[in-house]
Amino acid sequence: MFSHNQRLQYSVHVHEPNPALANLMLEQFGGPQGELAAAMRYFTQALAEDDPGRRDMLFDIATEELSHLEVIGTIVAMLNKGAKGELAEAVDSEAELFRKLQGAGNDSHVTQVLFGGGPSLINSGGQLWTAGYVDSIGEPTADLRSNIAAEARAKIVYERLINLTDDPGVKDALTFLMTREIAHQKSFEKALYSIEPNFPPGKLAGRPAFADMYVNTSQGAGDMRGPWNNDADFNVVSDHEKHMGIDGGDGLMSVKLSSDQKKIVDQMTARLKSNLDVNPTTGAELGKAGGGDQLNRH
Amino acid sequence: MFSHNQRLQYSVHVHEPNPALANLMLEQFGGPQGELAAAMRYFTQALAEDDPGRRDMLFDIATEELSHLEVIGTIVAMLNKGAKGELAEAVDSEAELFRKLQGAGNDSHVTQVLFGGGPSLINSGGQLWTAGYVDSIGEPTADLRSNIAAEARAKIVYERLINLTDDPGVKDALTFLMTREIAHQKSFEKALYSIEPNFPPGKLAGRPAFADMYVNTSQGAGDMRGPWNNDADFNVVSDHEKHMGIDGGDGLMSVKLSSDQKKIVDQMTARLKSNLDVNPTTGAELGKAGGGDQLNRH
Amino acid sequence: MFSHNQRLQYSVHVHEPNPALANLMLEQFGGPQGELAAAMRYFTQALAEDDPGRRDMLFDIATEELSHLEVIGTIVAMLNKGAKGELAEAVDSEAELFRKLQGAGNDSHVTQVLFGGGPSLINSGGQLWTAGYVDSIGEPTADLRSNIAAEARAKIVYERLINLTDDPGVKDALTFLMTREIAHQKSFEKALYSIEPNFPPGKLAGRPAFADMYVNTSQGAGDMRGPWNNDADFNVVSDHEKHMGIDGGDGLMSVKLSSDQKKIVDQMTARLKSNLDVNPTTGAELGKAGGGDQLNRH
Amino acid sequence: MFSHNQRLQYSVHVHEPNPALANLMLEQFGGPQGELAAAMRYFTQALAEDDPGRRDMLFDIATEELSHLEVIGTIVAMLNKGAKGELAEAVDSEAELFRKLQGAGNDSHVTQVLFGGGPSLINSGGQLWTAGYVDSIGEPTADLRSNIAAEARAKIVYERLINLTDDPGVKDALTFLMTREIAHQKSFEKALYSIEPNFPPGKLAGRPAFADMYVNTSQGAGDMRGPWNNDADFNVVSDHEKHMGIDGGDGLMSVKLSSDQKKIVDQMTARLKSNLDVNPTTGAELGKAGGGDQLNRH
Amino acid sequence: MFSHNQRLQYSVHVHEPNPALANLMLEQFGGPQGELAAAMRYFTQALAEDDPGRRDMLFDIATEELSHLEVIGTIVAMLNKGAKGELAEAVDSEAELFRKLQGAGNDSHVTQVLFGGGPSLINSGGQLWTAGYVDSIGEPTADLRSNIAAEARAKIVYERLINLTDDPGVKDALTFLMTREIAHQKSFEKALYSIEPNFPPGKLAGRPAFADMYVNTSQGAGDMRGPWNNDADFNVVSDHEKHMGIDGGDGLMSVKLSSDQKKIVDQMTARLKSNLDVNPTTGAELGKAGGGDQLNRH
Amino acid sequence: MFSHNQRLQYSVHVHEPNPALANLMLEQFGGPQGELAAAMRYFTQALAEDDPGRRDMLFDIATEELSHLEVIGTIVAMLNKGAKGELAEAVDSEAELFRKLQGAGNDSHVTQVLFGGGPSLINSGGQLWTAGYVDSIGEPTADLRSNIAAEARAKIVYERLINLTDDPGVKDALTFLMTREIAHQKSFEKALYSIEPNFPPGKLAGRPAFADMYVNTSQGAGDMRGPWNNDADFNVVSDHEKHMGIDGGDGLMSVKLSSDQKKIVDQMTARLKSNLDVNPTTGAELGKAGGGDQLNRH
Repeated sequence: MFSHNQRLQYSVHVHEPNPALANLMLEQFGGPQGELAAAMRYFTQALAEDDPGRRDMLFDIATEELSHLEVIGTIVAMLNKGAKGELAEAVDSEAELFRKLQGAGNDSHVTQVLFGGGPSLINSGGQLWTAGYVDSIGEPTADLRSNIAAEARAKIVYERLINLTDDPGVKDALTFLMTREIAHQKSFEKALYSIEPNFPPGKLAGRPAFADMYVNTSQGAGDMRGPWNNDADFNVVSDHEKHMGIDGGDGLMSVKLSSDQKKIVDQMTARLKSNLDVNPTTGAELGKAGGGDQLNRH
Repeated sequence: MFSHNQRLQYSVHVHEPNPALANLMLEQFGGPQGELAAAMRYFTQALAEDDPGRRDMLFDIATEELSHLEVIGTIVAMLNKGAKGELAEAVDSEAELFRKLQGAGNDSHVTQVLFGGGPSLINSGGQLWTAGYVDSIGEPTADLRSNIAAEARAKIVYERLINLTDDPGVKDALTFLMTREIAHQKSFEKALYSIEPNFPPGKLAGRPAFADMYVNTSQGAGDMRGPWNNDADFNVVSDHEKHMGIDGGDGLMSVKLSSDQKKIVDQMTARLKSNLDVNPTTGAELGKAGGGDQLNRH
Repeated sequence: MFSHNQRLQYSVHVHEPNPALANLMLEQFGGPQGELAAAMRYFTQALAEDDPGRRDMLFDIATEELSHLEVIGTIVAMLNKGAKGELAEAVDSEAELFRKLQGAGNDSHVTQVLFGGGPSLINSGGQLWTAGYVDSIGEPTADLRSNIAAEARAKIVYERLINLTDDPGVKDALTFLMTREIAHQKSFEKALYSIEPNFPPGKLAGRPAFADMYVNTSQGAGDMRGPWNNDADFNVVSDHEKHMGIDGGDGLMSVKLSSDQKKIVDQMTARLKSNLDVNPTTGAELGKAGGGDQLNRH
Repeated sequence: MFSHNQRLQYSVHVHEPNPALANLMLEQFGGPQGELAAAMRYFTQALAEDDPGRRDMLFDIATEELSHLEVIGTIVAMLNKGAKGELAEAVDSEAELFRKLQGAGNDSHVTQVLFGGGPSLINSGGQLWTAGYVDSIGEPTADLRSNIAAEARAKIVYERLINLTDDPGVKDALTFLMTREIAHQKSFEKALYSIEPNFPPGKLAGRPAFADMYVNTSQGAGDMRGPWNNDADFNVVSDHEKHMGIDGGDGLMSVKLSSDQKKIVDQMTARLKSNLDVNPTTGAELGKAGGGDQLNRH
Repeated sequence: MFSHNQRLQYSVHVHEPNPALANLMLEQFGGPQGELAAAMRYFTQALAEDDPGRRDMLFDIATEELSHLEVIGTIVAMLNKGAKGELAEAVDSEAELFRKLQGAGNDSHVTQVLFGGGPSLINSGGQLWTAGYVDSIGEPTADLRSNIAAEARAKIVYERLINLTDDPGVKDALTFLMTREIAHQKSFEKALYSIEPNFPPGKLAGRPAFADMYVNTSQGAGDMRGPWNNDADFNVVSDHEKHMGIDGGDGLMSVKLSSDQKKIVDQMTARLKSNLDVNPTTGAELGKAGGGDQLNRH
Repeated sequence: MFSHNQRLQYSVHVHEPNPALANLMLEQFGGPQGELAAAMRYFTQALAEDDPGRRDMLFDIATEELSHLEVIGTIVAMLNKGAKGELAEAVDSEAELFRKLQGAGNDSHVTQVLFGGGPSLINSGGQLWTAGYVDSIGEPTADLRSNIAAEARAKIVYERLINLTDDPGVKDALTFLMTREIAHQKSFEKALYSIEPNFPPGKLAGRPAFADMYVNTSQGAGDMRGPWNNDADFNVVSDHEKHMGIDGGDGLMSVKLSSDQKKIVDQMTARLKSNLDVNPTTGAELGKAGGGDQLNRH
């Protein structure tokens, strides 16, 4: 059960309205690396988690991310406050309002026209938030790695936003939010490594011959060696002929059809056979300049 | 530049057609943890990567994932082969075809009716693949963590699929694909730790006071301690009053409006003010049984 | 700022696992009429709301909806608990697991294979939640009407789910959730009618001639009169000729182009002109049985 | 059965091309509050409606909305007419065309480059129209409320667009379209209240104890009372402890597993247990500056 | 301007309710090859079309497709009629309703639970209709080819549906709808070839050396020749080395950076450099069974 | 099985960074007419294709399209190279970085902030790539027509992009890519017409009476004749009365319900009946200025 207090986790004192900056902030409100995605990632994991310790941690962090969603959404609302009133009250002339809207730049027009200046669950490019951003799969050693990665991504997007604003209030709140991603990443790392073993994830072991193989599929001038394909840990296979049928088999495909099914498939294949021995006249030839001339006049 | 050979990386010899199993396999063809998402994650990173070693590794693995997309898509095609012909050729009666389609179960009807038995870029529930699954953000210490997590997730989904089939050919190919995710995860781990330092990701340091803080937002009976909020690494803040205005400020929000803007915002607020002193008759009251009686008769 | 307690708003004691029922429940977890959509609708409105009373109400109800999301998600987790372990641990044979998965029915396979039995932000058909479900536009007389409608829809979907289960614990919790939608609808109705006036929404009056007009565009046997086009309130226009150019104008379209623009548009139009005087041979004719015969043989 | 006449419902005489304004207009062509969403909302309801009066009304208004889609689409086409020809014919230099495209502003580049200046089913931010905007659920007391709300939202978006243009022809047509939303809202209101009773929607009554309860989940400084939680109609519960297990139960969750299932779930939980007594070295520590030094050198 | 009559273009007399069949029919209501996609494809083209003949044809066919949308939607409504009432009125026991819902099969549960038995803009797998299905780009020689292809696809999906039902009324109406796609394809073919020339589409000629080249990228056992790479029309390039830098250049990439930009890019690259000379300990090694032992105990 | 070489199919030498131009290029990277859609269209067809010749052709062209995806993605990466470093390294002041980001124009801010300057699978408006763009349906005479149309559309979008840039390296590579679409269209045309017959697509013939009928649904001033409704090939039906019940039937709809089902449907209809004889007071009337006055005061 959640409860709420209108005091924010972090104070938001914005210097002046700036709809274009507001629009960039949406990246962390309704964008793929934003706070709703984070909150929902951890919340859905918490609900299905059977381990009481991790469950508590996931609820702790999910709840904090909801509070971050509130902070970033409040920044958006503050930055839009002036523009919102101007469009709703239409005190300026239409030409002046149009000029202001255009002048604000980037995609801030969507926020003004469609959402009336309110924070909305889109990213800075207007893309609707989708649950496709939430990558929880219900297995903790995979999910914790997803969480670690998600915190790293969110940290970077905050860093980029911080680099783009000199409004001290916005910068301050963003720095707080960015720092919290670091703290959360640390917690998720601790949680991952307190499951022993956690690699490979899951229960099934891989097949040894393929677990240490590095398939060198991209060759030529840029071909390189590095820690990711070092000889101590990996068996590097560079011969492209050996990449195919790497099981030692034919590299082909087959399925056993019943004789009835085979007959039907053969019938379909015959019906739709490409005749290899023709050079048919085609629509492209009819359509070329002069191409249809002898054919299509009355 | 890519080139292709019709021999598969791994031979696919399927025991017999099974459209319902085919549909489950789509999870790794057009699903969020599937091979297209993997290939596109690494390919988009490779294109923007300036470090020649990582760039080569990303192309190597992206190319292999495309080859895996081909293997899993071939499994789908083989498992659907019989059903595909039957619907296209309509040799059976309509009632028999309907019965077969229904009997196959799960969402395999979409594959038959819409895609004609071919592999399509949907997951096992019919959800269209979306680039929202690709979480590349153009910063290698974040992207490599995303790759590590993605490989872990894909490994688990393959494990679940392996647990669901006793077709030896399908099981064999799935086990190969699952194992390769383990190998890829190892390479991405090596690549991450060959960047020094890689934590925190990015260039900006966090604010120390918040980087080691654990905000205990979820309390009550399930409240627990563990490695993720241990005293050695974390400053645990449990007093909910201290969670608000954690910056030491008021936890409130403000923006400095020009006097013109303020006037307009005030005007809008007044126009849309909720009158707190009324108990208005509402639509709900009109709509209750007997509610509109005295009001609405001719 | 949010806080959380692991005790639920409503106790969830499920009689026995039932993955197919779990899948239906997803409709109110990640479906369009579900609790996340509700929570986000009110939360985004609250953040932008300048009226302190409505702002508080919106936070109250948004927070409760998050708690409902937790309740319905917990129902899903409980109903899936058995199946989740079976697939992850693979104690049964593959054939048995496949049979169970297929036997559960509807789209529950997605929850098992992709989400490991955890609640996920999809509806009962596997469609990913999208912010397109959130219809907040930042104008309270419109938004409150959206909220009233959303509560009515959610009430109905809960009613349908209640009609589909005889698990007493599930039925009990669903009835609570359904009832709360009624209470919320009442609050939103009160809030709407405490703004005076609230109709028409917004600031601009409509043009009187068109505000009371009913355009009878669908005619013929089913044509009817009712309260929605009664003579007291509406001017019914049935003559279809009068529907066109209803402004009294020509019903046509035009734009003033500069002479340069006009020249370019004319050039484009001429280049792409359809020749009305030909009966061209087409691809369809080439493609008919025997159609291409004289043309395309070597 | 539909029929069509090329004369528009309302004449569209645009003063001059303006691709940026065209792009804003897309909000009502392919946006969530636009005419296609409206037409499809009413059309899908009409098809399933068993009441002959409402069915006729829904077809009337759906058909008019399609005619509005035509009007707004025609405005878009007119506003783009010049730019469309310039890009297709490439009479200007590339630099000049690029400058014009950039100069037009907002997202009008998508319309030019991808759609060739034609109206397309995206909103003003380029988001593809999705049926997630259509909220019909096949129950008239809910659907009519959705229609009322949708008309209110569309009215507001038109009002915002009107405030942004001083092209008299565009303004005139938009004012017509805005006014028709008012008229439609009135019809839908009449239709809702001609169903008696219509509140609560559906057939099941709620549980009385919860139907009049107001759960005060958001407290602190902003806590307020108003018509939405007045004492006459609502039982306000403010004690947060009472919010949990509001049924009088434990607020916990359970499911009865068979002993076999329980054994498997326990096995899974043990396998994935978090060890609470360790402080594991993690990736974050390896990744810190200097963190991996003693470990990873050759 | 559209008008409407409640008489359908084609009579729909369904033998008996069948929710599973209804669900399959949704493929042509809200699916990618369905009637809404068709209507919107032609309608958006018509609005932007400057050629009066094609414009009229596009309106004719768009209007007919809307009438087909009505026919297929009516079939869905009829097939669902019984089930719809049963769920809304809940005359049966919950267990019986659940059994019926499950028994109907495929994705029909979504239609019942979410849409109340009404036709909705999803495909047979529950995927929401998206404007991504509409491929109009505002150039008639491309758009007409898209229309020809779309009619061919729709014809095939209708054929598959016809093969799946023996309800004579449904079969009859579907056969009508399928036949109309043939007629429309013929009209679009005529329209394409009445533009002279229409190939290559657009205004710019291609570069001759590449316009007749066939790049044989897929080689090995399955390599074949056919009309699509015949010697008369194509210059087949099979040497893979020649595929790269096919312009005769280096096949590499470059951009001229200013010296300031170069300095910054170099700085970033150095900061994120992969150290090729280490074999770092990684998370995978920490996570292996026994892997973290010496490191992470208290 | 795929292999890769870091040499591109076409050399990419960009004159100078230009993030706005980069953003336009995304249209062919992650847009609906772009290279990923093309590659996936042909690749999914190849996997299901039983005809060996077409299968080889589809793999050839799919593989080349992947190589084109690499070329266009490389152009994006080069054009963004400077801006990417500036944002990541934050050498400039925040105000300067914000000014540069805004100044670049169009939607390039998304690429910078979210994707760090890397190519991403969105179109130039920020819309995520969706598999809804891929229209393969597993029937070659339909799929080949889809391919022909797709190549025509891609050719046009390249042409528009070429018209927008004067960077000689970009223009050169785009012209190559555009030309290859012409070559591919020719191959697909040859492949289509080497299937005999290919029209109508599929196996079922249409009903003759409807296969040659042209339904003139859009009439009035713009009504025209042309090749698409010529008398030689079409039977034009213009009488709107004859459009309804075109089967010669009543144009109505029906379904045979069991008597139990009928009773339930009647019960539902009665419960939800619209009372035609009332003029109910509605929410609109309560909401009008002064409307609720007599009702709602304390």
